[in-house]
Amino acid sequence: MKIALDLMGGDNAPKELLAGAIKWLNEYDTGQIILVGQQEVMAAELSGCSYDSQRLALVNASQVIEMDESPATALRKKKDASIVVATKLVKEGRADAVVSCGSTGAQMAAALFILGRMEGIERPPIVVAIPSRGSQPTLLIDAGANVDCRPLQLVQFARLGRAYARGVLNIENPRVALLNNGEEEGKGNNLTTQTYEILRQQKNINFIGNLEGRDLFNDRGDIIVCDGFTGNVLLKAMEGMAMFLAAGIKQELGTIPSAFARLDYTQIGGAPLLGINGISIVCHGSSRREAVCAGLAIAAECINNNIIAQQLQELAELS
Amino acid sequence: MKIALDLMGGDNAPKELLAGAIKWLNEYDTGQIILVGQQEVMAAELSGCSYDSQRLALVNASQVIEMDESPATALRKKKDASIVVATKLVKEGRADAVVSCGSTGAQMAAALFILGRMEGIERPPIVVAIPSRGSQPTLLIDAGANVDCRPLQLVQFARLGRAYARGVLNIENPRVALLNNGEEEGKGNNLTTQTYEILRQQKNINFIGNLEGRDLFNDRGDIIVCDGFTGNVLLKAMEGMAMFLAAGIKQELGTIPSAFARLDYTQIGGAPLLGINGISIVCHGSSRREAVCAGLAIAAECINNNIIAQQLQELAELS
Repeated sequence: MKIALDLMGGDNAPKELLAGAIKWLNEYDTGQIILVGQQEVMAAELSGCSYDSQRLALVNASQVIEMDESPATALRKKKDASIVVATKLVKEGRADAVVSCGSTGAQMAAALFILGRMEGIERPPIVVAIPSRGSQPTLLIDAGANVDCRPLQLVQFARLGRAYARGVLNIENPRVALLNNGEEEGKGNNLTTQTYEILRQQKNINFIGNLEGRDLFNDRGDIIVCDGFTGNVLLKAMEGMAMFLAAGIKQELGTIPSAFARLDYTQIGGAPLLGINGISIVCHGSSRREAVCAGLAIAAECINNNIIAQQLQELAELS
Repeated sequence: MKIALDLMGGDNAPKELLAGAIKWLNEYDTGQIILVGQQEVMAAELSGCSYDSQRLALVNASQVIEMDESPATALRKKKDASIVVATKLVKEGRADAVVSCGSTGAQMAAALFILGRMEGIERPPIVVAIPSRGSQPTLLIDAGANVDCRPLQLVQFARLGRAYARGVLNIENPRVALLNNGEEEGKGNNLTTQTYEILRQQKNINFIGNLEGRDLFNDRGDIIVCDGFTGNVLLKAMEGMAMFLAAGIKQELGTIPSAFARLDYTQIGGAPLLGINGISIVCHGSSRREAVCAGLAIAAECINNNIIAQQLQELAELS
């Protein structure tokens, strides 16, 4: 098992990314990491680090795509960008997955152009695991990749989420719900009311109807489907609220309770991009070593459970 | 000043609503409350309570609209429902505002059919104040009334939000932003990219561009505009997250830090319905006495600052 790590993307690159890679090597017995980035930067960072050199390889990439660049333009101009080189390693079979904390748009564009979409999938969604009261997280899909969606796309998201829930999280018959502004049938905007009808007619899917925003945390559904605009705004609002609350509590108590760690996006995370012919794991731009290590662990889970085959099988069920 | 309070709607009716009314009477020196509900229920609840009877009147309404009823059907069938009777008091000039913790849909429908829309307004939005790092809250508009919106509606929301920010919160030149999936110009879905263009061309409005979900708490904008589907999902997700975090922290520390009180929707709140010819304040269905009292206080602020005239003046600026 080989995982390519884009060492140049994200707020804390390359230091925390490298630390995350070494943490992963120390915690897991098998698997190799291929660091992709500027050779001299990587060499300098690695000097003095203690790691199993048999399990760490370096691949040079001379360029970096910055967060504020247009993904399509950057991809065209920067052929030797770290995310491009890393994604190509997957395409060529030299790596089994790519992990990045860099520009999500650039990572998506690289996945689309280099790895390609699965048949019938227009644009790949991102699935994010949200901590819940249950033993398993709630999967929110699409978490931000597709801002305008048609009903059939949301149905595809449900199928892809199901593949991930079953294949990687081992949830046998995941409860699939539609994120909506009320639970009752008939509630919703044009998109969700139409999606409801199609989801209800799908075979081999445990569609439980509408759920509301608050149910993300309530363990009432395993997979909650929404358009990527709503998913993006939602996740960022929750992030902002967690920071706001943490600041208030720190002022009050002098410390931040560890309950916040479950919501700290610098420490948790790693969100698979689904519906593409290869494994690409999106990490938060502010990821620290714990989040990078978690992202690598998710990549390993996806590889070990053959998430690609799981998705193809699930998409064949679309009706 | 007279405020009609629908005493029969909400999870904690009538007890907490009555307690909220009495709390308001004790805290504010002027103004009268008209309790609207079933006469015998109100009389029984009032016996033994200590209050200034000069400032509390009762109006009988024999029916109640339940949370799960279709608003339009309920309004047609239940002519003597408390929210209908209370809204009619405003229409007839016997009250200056109505406050309810009952079905938001029924309250909106009553406002639309009995009070009517302001000219040019299709459907009234709800404005919600979100606590922020700043000295003033961030106003989110529409918080859930209109699930499918056209760009011009979002521009109207911006205007109505501006009237509320200026007229009631005394923010001289409020920063108006569009809720989006990224800050850069050009980001967004069909709705937000089109709205951006219209907002940019509006005169006499301090449009600062796009803001993201996390900025709700960051005091970067005073008014954040979105469609009601996004607003509804967002608010409920934040509510769910606050409860999830509070439960985790209570387990950890044995107590819930008071920082949570700023986000406790049973204690805060009162969200004006804008764009209608009358003042109607929506309170959360789970409101307790503190939230009811806060809702009454917001009604009083809207009356004292003549929010209706402020809105009409602002709508005249639409270009």
